[in-house]
Amino acid sequence: MWWASRARWLFSALLDVGGVGLRARRRTASSGLEITGSCGGELQGELDRFGGISVHLSRHRTLHRLDAAAFRRLLQAAIQQWRAEGRIAAWLHIPILQSHFIAPAASLGFCFHHAEPHLSTLTLWLGEGPSRLPGYATHQVGVAGAVFDVSTRKVLVVQDRNKLKNMWKFPGGLSEPGEDIGDTAVREVFEETGVKSEFRSLLSIRQQHRSPGAFGMSDMYLICRLQPRSFTINFCQQECLKCEWMDLESLARTKHTTPITSRVARLLLYGHREGFDKIDLSMEELPAVYTGLFYKLYHRGLPESDSV
Amino acid sequence: MWWASRARWLFSALLDVGGVGLRARRRTASSGLEITGSCGGELQGELDRFGGISVHLSRHRTLHRLDAAAFRRLLQAAIQQWRAEGRIAAWLHIPILQSHFIAPAASLGFCFHHAEPHLSTLTLWLGEGPSRLPGYATHQVGVAGAVFDVSTRKVLVVQDRNKLKNMWKFPGGLSEPGEDIGDTAVREVFEETGVKSEFRSLLSIRQQHRSPGAFGMSDMYLICRLQPRSFTINFCQQECLKCEWMDLESLARTKHTTPITSRVARLLLYGHREGFDKIDLSMEELPAVYTGLFYKLYHRGLPESDSV
Repeated sequence: MWWASRARWLFSALLDVGGVGLRARRRTASSGLEITGSCGGELQGELDRFGGISVHLSRHRTLHRLDAAAFRRLLQAAIQQWRAEGRIAAWLHIPILQSHFIAPAASLGFCFHHAEPHLSTLTLWLGEGPSRLPGYATHQVGVAGAVFDVSTRKVLVVQDRNKLKNMWKFPGGLSEPGEDIGDTAVREVFEETGVKSEFRSLLSIRQQHRSPGAFGMSDMYLICRLQPRSFTINFCQQECLKCEWMDLESLARTKHTTPITSRVARLLLYGHREGFDKIDLSMEELPAVYTGLFYKLYHRGLPESDSV
Repeated sequence: MWWASRARWLFSALLDVGGVGLRARRRTASSGLEITGSCGGELQGELDRFGGISVHLSRHRTLHRLDAAAFRRLLQAAIQQWRAEGRIAAWLHIPILQSHFIAPAASLGFCFHHAEPHLSTLTLWLGEGPSRLPGYATHQVGVAGAVFDVSTRKVLVVQDRNKLKNMWKFPGGLSEPGEDIGDTAVREVFEETGVKSEFRSLLSIRQQHRSPGAFGMSDMYLICRLQPRSFTINFCQQECLKCEWMDLESLARTKHTTPITSRVARLLLYGHREGFDKIDLSMEELPAVYTGLFYKLYHRGLPESDSV
């Protein structure tokens, strides 16, 4: 019965979550282990390895006929049952067109965990003490590319159309979901300036919180060193006011730039003089331990003898 | 009239969004410029500098009496008006207990942009061509601390309770919202091991997408170098199975660890031998240009003469 199922998932394959210890985690439905172990009446859910239970309303055709009050009664009974079973958290996944179920759930203590375009996920902590549920994504990631042409000692810079004038900076923008840092840099440089380039290294990382442009969330802004593969500028007039290849020393000295651009320009000057290995964080792709996923790792270069 | 208001906000103070150019941005209500310029009937909203309009349902007391169908008619008329006015996007901010308004909005094309615990934000692109709306946060951030005791050449490592046994790694966890990288490392080390430490530098960054532990979002995992300030271990038995000060050479050679821990151990060995300046990304706090906020910047150290 469902007790045997429970034993099975306790010893099921564990996912590598990247070496970061978390206090409570939810395994997504896509991990493949679906056990209808809940005795929550009509609200069948999946158990996860932390003792939480997940209900996907899209899979409950009969619920669609329920009004808000009837759903509330059903959910209230299910919560009682889940508490009796010792579940530590309940998760509701509600397609956007069934959002009339949200307010009844909220009246029983559920709140939003996160939302995707056509689905919201609500959660209720059932365990003891303060909630140990993990949060959702907290950072947006922006990437800029410093395209440095060694032969001319010039670097590609732009002035934004939508900002204060006369501030030179490296072209860049927000990463698309699932996009690697280096790919964002190359794409944004091309979209804003028309110049093709190749990723060489990561140079700097900036972290800022309560970012005005990030809906109050946090912001990671990374600057990469890129090698030019073309030189003709064909800049996007919707985003940029100006775009040019500027002498790197001039960029390092001008007042008409941001502190971070100025700093990176000086970093580039130093690297150009002493060797880019002095400033680069090189990238390597490594396999994650259990998932078959890959990740990109950035750190200062090690001599080969030290890295094996 | 509202045309004069519109001219005013076109030239209003611009926020520094950290140098990352974005194609369409929304200014939050907290920026202080509230102009009820919409002719959307009962649905008064705020205009933002990109031509979008924001409606906060919490401020519309009269709407609370409406049923879903009546709200849909009102919203449909408002959308027509906003299109006629040339607005490029509409935003609805809906308190969780008013979520019965979500499905009617969705039936008119709105979808979730994001959700906070007691509020969801929906959006509808009204402009030409593909949507240029910015996404929401896409990454969670985890940080681990490598506490290296130079005098004994030992580093503090743990084995997670909830994972496969016998894998040594650095203690760490998810950043709290608004928490700096270094603070996360120091906090997590203390919570997991009882050891107090101080931030010294950033050593490596890992980026992974579709992270199983991150609800399918992306994951940045950073490892910092920390200096111990105490040495007695008092580890959290809920999270850790074991915790010890391990000889750094042994950690670098053992199979019972993850590739990333192994790599960072070798980085530390190299730094210990040749100088930590060879491996460190040092941190500096700088002021953001317009907002009065500060941010932390990490990059390879520059000689003083090159950094001013």
